[in-house]
Amino acid sequence: MRAGVFDSGVGGLSVVKSLLEHRIFEDIVYYGDTARVPYGAKDKNTIVGFSLEALEFFKNFDIDILIIACNSVSAYAIEELKAKASIPVVGVIEPGIRALKNKVQDKQKNILIIGTKATIASKKYEIGLREGGYKNLTSLETGLFVPMIEEGIFDENILQACFSYYFKELKNIEVIILACTHFPLIKNKICKYFNGCLSIHSGEAIVEYLLENFKIEKSKKETTLKLFASDNPKKLEQTAAKWLGDFYPKKRK
Amino acid sequence: MRAGVFDSGVGGLSVVKSLLEHRIFEDIVYYGDTARVPYGAKDKNTIVGFSLEALEFFKNFDIDILIIACNSVSAYAIEELKAKASIPVVGVIEPGIRALKNKVQDKQKNILIIGTKATIASKKYEIGLREGGYKNLTSLETGLFVPMIEEGIFDENILQACFSYYFKELKNIEVIILACTHFPLIKNKICKYFNGCLSIHSGEAIVEYLLENFKIEKSKKETTLKLFASDNPKKLEQTAAKWLGDFYPKKRK
Repeated sequence: MRAGVFDSGVGGLSVVKSLLEHRIFEDIVYYGDTARVPYGAKDKNTIVGFSLEALEFFKNFDIDILIIACNSVSAYAIEELKAKASIPVVGVIEPGIRALKNKVQDKQKNILIIGTKATIASKKYEIGLREGGYKNLTSLETGLFVPMIEEGIFDENILQACFSYYFKELKNIEVIILACTHFPLIKNKICKYFNGCLSIHSGEAIVEYLLENFKIEKSKKETTLKLFASDNPKKLEQTAAKWLGDFYPKKRK
Repeated sequence: MRAGVFDSGVGGLSVVKSLLEHRIFEDIVYYGDTARVPYGAKDKNTIVGFSLEALEFFKNFDIDILIIACNSVSAYAIEELKAKASIPVVGVIEPGIRALKNKVQDKQKNILIIGTKATIASKKYEIGLREGGYKNLTSLETGLFVPMIEEGIFDENILQACFSYYFKELKNIEVIILACTHFPLIKNKICKYFNGCLSIHSGEAIVEYLLENFKIEKSKKETTLKLFASDNPKKLEQTAAKWLGDFYPKKRK
């Protein structure tokens, strides 16, 4: 099976890592709209417009499924993408909600959802979880983590200052939804701040979701990965080499 | 005289504030490409392309001069804009260099230039200052300040952690060029970190430059300001009301 993976920038590589790790697909075509990144602080109309343009890009490739590896796009443009696409389109939010339901049976747990302005404003996670009976939900926009991670800044003092700034009012968080595909890169630090809480990761969630919902035979060969970007494709390649580590495929084109 | 002011987002409002303060123009049309902000970490080709599109936008208005209130655009696209425009185009870098030369006679002073990746990589300030005989120059990309200011985060702990991260190797800085139009919003904090050093501010520099180089009669009336944005014009209006303070004109359309 061949997949397209769309993200606003490089963040979706954390989803690609999970897909590669589990050899879900034979081929992956990744497109990051790095010329217009970030999407997360922008309007719904803008995000929908950019996402539909990305759909045009993927028409150049013979893919069987389109993965939206960006929470902001999944929050604001998934319906429009599904309506326009001739192949299945899977965002990260529905899988994230399902992953939480599978992992957390106790509906009283204190759950924190962190993401961009767009993702949080859409309330998509909150609505899905409330429908599932979860009551103690806090949603928080933590936009500054995106450029920090994008710039490769993992300075302990800056991180801790950001944690205090964003999280100081929060108490007894037991589960955290990393509702932005950049955030898995600081997952351990965030979970440590909350005394080792459980976390939901978009990449892992989508792997489970795909295996449950599609007839996928795991590939025996290493996945082929093609990377495209609307700005600075070299930087995307470098970030992929760094983030994907051992899973960065030798065979890419 | 009527001016267009172009910026990648809201940062150029710090330049507009100086223009309003000195009543340089009768009318200002501001356009921020907020749908694709930030430019500063993007490639030259991308920045040139976006800037030429902005030039098309300004063709809808009867303006006498175009001010580029963005250091990244001034660094990478000023020649292309000048070649295509039928009116004078003035960027912020040449005025910034001139302002420093006027203020700092001692060529031995330790000068720090901070800006985005694009501005710093272009070396435009460095080249101009070396030609002027200034020897002790340090250029530093401090990209994280942009989203921080854009998000309105002025948390003391985060700021100090960022200062330590970016500036810890620097000693005895005597002059600092704020080579990004966002940075005047944290000017006092930065200058305090460097024991009250002198600073060069794009907005003030461009006012001096315009008065020296163009036949400008200061307007007796309050300037009219029209604000346009490619994404979320309401947010631009709100930021303008906040940043421009007493200089936010009552008469805007």
